[in-house]
Amino acid sequence: MFDKLALIGIGLIGSSIARAARLNGLARTIAIATRQQATLEEARALGLGDHYTRSNAEAVRDADLVILCVPVGAYAAVMADIAPALKPGAILSDVGSVKGQVVKVVEPFVPAGVHFIPGHPIAGTEHSGPAAGFPELFVGRWCILTPRRDTDPVALDRLTSFWGAMGSNVERMDPAHHDLVLAITSHVPHLIAYNIVGTVADLETHTRSEVIKFSASGFRDFTRIAASDPVMWRDVFLTNRDAVLEMLGRFLEDLSQLQRAVRVGDGPAMEALFTRTRAIRRSIITAGQETAAADFGRPHGGSEAATPTAPDVPRIGIREHGGGEDA
Amino acid sequence: MFDKLALIGIGLIGSSIARAARLNGLARTIAIATRQQATLEEARALGLGDHYTRSNAEAVRDADLVILCVPVGAYAAVMADIAPALKPGAILSDVGSVKGQVVKVVEPFVPAGVHFIPGHPIAGTEHSGPAAGFPELFVGRWCILTPRRDTDPVALDRLTSFWGAMGSNVERMDPAHHDLVLAITSHVPHLIAYNIVGTVADLETHTRSEVIKFSASGFRDFTRIAASDPVMWRDVFLTNRDAVLEMLGRFLEDLSQLQRAVRVGDGPAMEALFTRTRAIRRSIITAGQETAAADFGRPHGGSEAATPTAPDVPRIGIREHGGGEDA
Repeated sequence: MFDKLALIGIGLIGSSIARAARLNGLARTIAIATRQQATLEEARALGLGDHYTRSNAEAVRDADLVILCVPVGAYAAVMADIAPALKPGAILSDVGSVKGQVVKVVEPFVPAGVHFIPGHPIAGTEHSGPAAGFPELFVGRWCILTPRRDTDPVALDRLTSFWGAMGSNVERMDPAHHDLVLAITSHVPHLIAYNIVGTVADLETHTRSEVIKFSASGFRDFTRIAASDPVMWRDVFLTNRDAVLEMLGRFLEDLSQLQRAVRVGDGPAMEALFTRTRAIRRSIITAGQETAAADFGRPHGGSEAATPTAPDVPRIGIREHGGGEDA
Repeated sequence: MFDKLALIGIGLIGSSIARAARLNGLARTIAIATRQQATLEEARALGLGDHYTRSNAEAVRDADLVILCVPVGAYAAVMADIAPALKPGAILSDVGSVKGQVVKVVEPFVPAGVHFIPGHPIAGTEHSGPAAGFPELFVGRWCILTPRRDTDPVALDRLTSFWGAMGSNVERMDPAHHDLVLAITSHVPHLIAYNIVGTVADLETHTRSEVIKFSASGFRDFTRIAASDPVMWRDVFLTNRDAVLEMLGRFLEDLSQLQRAVRVGDGPAMEALFTRTRAIRRSIITAGQETAAADFGRPHGGSEAATPTAPDVPRIGIREHGGGEDA
């Protein structure tokens, strides 16, 4: 499908693209560029590509598809590196979680004859780095492209087919709309998860160790989201500020109402809300975006769950509440 | 271990106790009481017990272990039913998520000679009803008991052994401390999850359908928690108000700071927080309370994920952003 694919950045998403492109025969050669020597060596040891370099310009030379897979905050520096080396006719894309700011930063660098088509695969896990990727990451997941009205239709079709061949469902959207939808589906949920885990991190040691111990009651779900890559997420909030603040404002308005319902003991209002929210879960499962298995299909009663490894945790404890530092 | 176990209520937790007690031979007979005829018939069809009745008093007669498995708001009515029928020497316990209020409501009803020991298994899924239970639910999970200083030690040991035999690690705590720890590990996370899913439910139809479509980017984790039993959770917030409002207050203070960091673009503050929160996740995995598998071990690339069932969703769509009602 492509002669040479260049990936700038080889973390969770970049390495998953490398694996999926290789598995599906989508590129004759794959060039990988990353700033850190250690990361580059890790990618090489994993056999993710054909060429490895710390020079972004070298990686993109002669490439007919270039995908930026670095945090959005690094785009300007990367574009300054690669703009002179981009091949005429090449497709330039990215995987950033924000699109409006990306267009603003990248477009001024794009040479005539290079087709810039921003992209965002709605896929990922809480793990980071080259070893975290896997080729099935995009299967059945959406990839949003935000082309301009005057984007070359042939280039757009080629990029659409590339994502389709990795298993994605491709959707087109304008950048501002993308940023608003993602603010509520992704950015604000991450902000809230980071925030509550931060609240717990600030608790006195004793209580914090108990929170960790009893986290299975709900909190642990939030910690998964709050374990996502810190630099990538810092950049999301730096570059999608307005949409995030808008959606966060709505969330806070609703939370004030709910807080009041708790304070005055308004049972009917709470029950009505808690009933309404179940329907949204069902819609997501029906839409094929989530497993219907209880508790995400997490293991129950397996050896993983049955053996707490904290040495101070007897199987049948008789200790009064808590104590013990967390790991 | 027990001659007759009586379960008042046979939802997710009650039915899991019935299955685990049966599997591990912990009770010679199991009596099941529930208010709704349909639920009782469902329990009977599943073969969860030996006796089925809509009379709470009948179920507890001659039982040496009685466990309340109904929402906390129903305790007073249940106690009025069963108090005269409780056998002297019987152990009376419960599985409610709140303990202070439970003690306040139940104790006045407890006849002399009956050992009341409140309990709370930290286990569950987002599913409800008799069919949702399974016998491994408690394996490797904590069960908190909140005995008084003068609780009969033999009764306490028997109840501890019962939960241990179902696979739980048993911990003792005082009711007020339990309620504070659970407020932050469980109650506030549920409140927040219900709230953000409610915010989404209130979005205009068009945007809401897109949120469902792109929910895999983080939001869907919240919907799992917000799919939990509405009546049970209403009662939690009605009965653990003070601890919930205290912990919610801390969360909101922290969120104001984070909101400000987003508004002024304070990258270092955000990166520092997002880095700190990763450590909490690692502690939870180390403590055996969570799987280390990426994305909870959710299926990736399986048939479940690969086939969106919404009829208006082509595999490679070229529609401009969204449209289409959600399912």
